Amino acid sequence: MRTQFDKQLQTLHIELIRMGSLCEQVISLCANMLLKKENLSADINAAETEINQKERDIENLCLKLLLQQQPVAKDLRIISAALKMISDLERIGDQAADIAELAPYLADCDAPGKVHIGDMARATVGMVTRSIDAFVKSDVKMAAEVMAEDDEVDQLFEKIKLELMDLIRQNGLDAKAAMDLLMAAKYFERIGDHAVNVAEWVEYSVTGVHKNDANF
Amino acid sequence: MRTQFDKQLQTLHIELIRMGSLCEQVISLCANMLLKKENLSADINAAETEINQKERDIENLCLKLLLQQQPVAKDLRIISAALKMISDLERIGDQAADIAELAPYLADCDAPGKVHIGDMARATVGMVTRSIDAFVKSDVKMAAEVMAEDDEVDQLFEKIKLELMDLIRQNGLDAKAAMDLLMAAKYFERIGDHAVNVAEWVEYSVTGVHKNDANF
Repeated sequence: MRTQFDKQLQTLHIELIRMGSLCEQVISLCANMLLKKENLSADINAAETEINQKERDIENLCLKLLLQQQPVAKDLRIISAALKMISDLERIGDQAADIAELAPYLADCDAPGKVHIGDMARATVGMVTRSIDAFVKSDVKMAAEVMAEDDEVDQLFEKIKLELMDLIRQNGLDAKAAMDLLMAAKYFERIGDHAVNVAEWVEYSVTGVHKNDANF
Repeated sequence: MRTQFDKQLQTLHIELIRMGSLCEQVISLCANMLLKKENLSADINAAETEINQKERDIENLCLKLLLQQQPVAKDLRIISAALKMISDLERIGDQAADIAELAPYLADCDAPGKVHIGDMARATVGMVTRSIDAFVKSDVKMAAEVMAEDDEVDQLFEKIKLELMDLIRQNGLDAKAAMDLLMAAKYFERIGDHAVNVAEWVEYSVTGVHKNDANF
């Protein structure tokens, strides 16, 4: 049974890595759409659909694992953590689609804050990669690094917000563009939060304690 | 076994209704904090902590059900749907906490758009109630109503956004207050989205098809 479980666990790891890569891809796509003004809606929608399908596939795999293998202790935590992680990864796809929707309205916006969006995209892509990596390797230290990296993303959001406020006060930017850009930045900030959630589930799968636990 | 499953399913229903009530409570609390300028941070944090704990309790109940009862077909869908729904309900708690964080900065803001926040809160509370109700009753029609109600919430968000833009253009509102109010409205709009997700899981648990399914 153990070998069978290990085999299915390996499949789960591979599927999660694939889902993570799709998330990294969709984050980069929507950042490019926003910054390089390319119309990548079709690619983004295709990637998001694939992410949604991966969520269902991995969920079914986890349920199969639970029913067939009746895992306990750490094995059970790994599966329940995976079930949670895929919800966060799926949300990353949603956020990217939301950013893609805003992009056309921001094509003509040259607010300096836009450059920070690129930094947010790079940072969140790295966080997603490392959070999945941390799960596959049961690496709590790497998970903690992902949580720390989120501070940078939050700071970038605050920076964009402050710059937009100044621009508005100086009438240097139309109110709609400012609000759309703020929203886009917020979506990237949320993507970082989802990567942090994934990292928190890694911590739970290894230690058995989640930061939301009452006893934590 | 069936009776045992039905008993555990009833417990699951009761726990979900409780978690839903906590979400309704926290939505109302953060709306009151925003509109009536009461400091309800402690109550909101307490409710959010309870929501997080409920998520873990219900998750454990679902895993126990899966492992002990080995459900198939609709029974299995009900449990996997519940596992998904609790993630959305937990997020509602997070969004409410985010709104509570913004509230102090909006205490002195008298933008007319603030009244729509009250409408958004009322609408989302109703959506949460009905989405859980739809799950307990396996009522696909009620789930569809929740999805339809979200249009109203989205329209209220757009209304607030437009009003804020006008105010900014007329220099009638400080840029920071405008952005904080936009964010608060966005959080309520997201709460509506989470209620819609719950309703979509109800539909899946009954029909076996989720809107994200590739074959759908």
